[in-house]
Amino acid sequence: MQIYNATSDDIHKKYMLLALEEAKTALKKDEVPVGAVVVKDGEVIGRGHNQRETLQSPTAHAEILAVNDAAQYLGAWRLNGCSVYVTMEPCAMCAGALVLSRISTVVFSLRDSKGGACGTVFNVTNEPKLNHAIEVVAGVCYDESLSLIQNFFREKRKKNK
Amino acid sequence: MQIYNATSDDIHKKYMLLALEEAKTALKKDEVPVGAVVVKDGEVIGRGHNQRETLQSPTAHAEILAVNDAAQYLGAWRLNGCSVYVTMEPCAMCAGALVLSRISTVVFSLRDSKGGACGTVFNVTNEPKLNHAIEVVAGVCYDESLSLIQNFFREKRKKNK
Repeated sequence: MQIYNATSDDIHKKYMLLALEEAKTALKKDEVPVGAVVVKDGEVIGRGHNQRETLQSPTAHAEILAVNDAAQYLGAWRLNGCSVYVTMEPCAMCAGALVLSRISTVVFSLRDSKGGACGTVFNVTNEPKLNHAIEVVAGVCYDESLSLIQNFFREKRKKNK
Repeated sequence: MQIYNATSDDIHKKYMLLALEEAKTALKKDEVPVGAVVVKDGEVIGRGHNQRETLQSPTAHAEILAVNDAAQYLGAWRLNGCSVYVTMEPCAMCAGALVLSRISTVVFSLRDSKGGACGTVFNVTNEPKLNHAIEVVAGVCYDESLSLIQNFFREKRKKNK
């Protein structure tokens, strides 16, 4: 797995800032602020933000919505050659969806010690028994994504006191 | 994990036959024949069959569609107290979705040595780091589900010759 090096690859930052915009849209809906975009040949072809509560759907994570948005745009479920940018490490469901979509690369900000499936709790993105492996880049816009999530849960705790 | 015992629990068979009906609907659409139903208090509240090609969606597996159908019926993403019956062991995406939905039980027919995530390739349904674990029952209507899948791929190979 590649660890992001800020001096070497600022193109990742450009797209992660768009994923962060999606995360902020989730925040406005009082959803856990996670956002994602799908990029192909430099063009954003899919967007999504967490909408579990808004849609009352257990599968409405940012990545699932972004990947389906991209598939709809392309008219095809295969996303070979695409990259997904997401503000938090995909869970088992989302990492599984990425493998099924044959997406080439996943770039994320924060590791998720409680459920991350790109090498943390599971390694769904690089499992030799599966028919597809995904390049994983971690740590892009780490501070911005961490701050967004931490503030969200801090506010939640305040309200629940 | 519980292994199905045909003499002890025929209620499972009753619902798996409905999941098999869903799988046959997928087959009619020339989709890999996998079907699922979600049951709560003896009532079927969600149905789904694989529609990856029909919908050109990488996430349109039977379980994802059935779980969202049930969530829509209940008006809630939490499926505590529900069981899902599916003709093949859920993959990482689907097992992850089941954990996220807080579903209580998954009953399936066939193990999937290439991607099953209920103990075969991954154990998403019973991972202590996740905030929910699911009771797993394997082997219900094994022969019927196996025959359906094997015939599908046999026909595919014939056509491709």
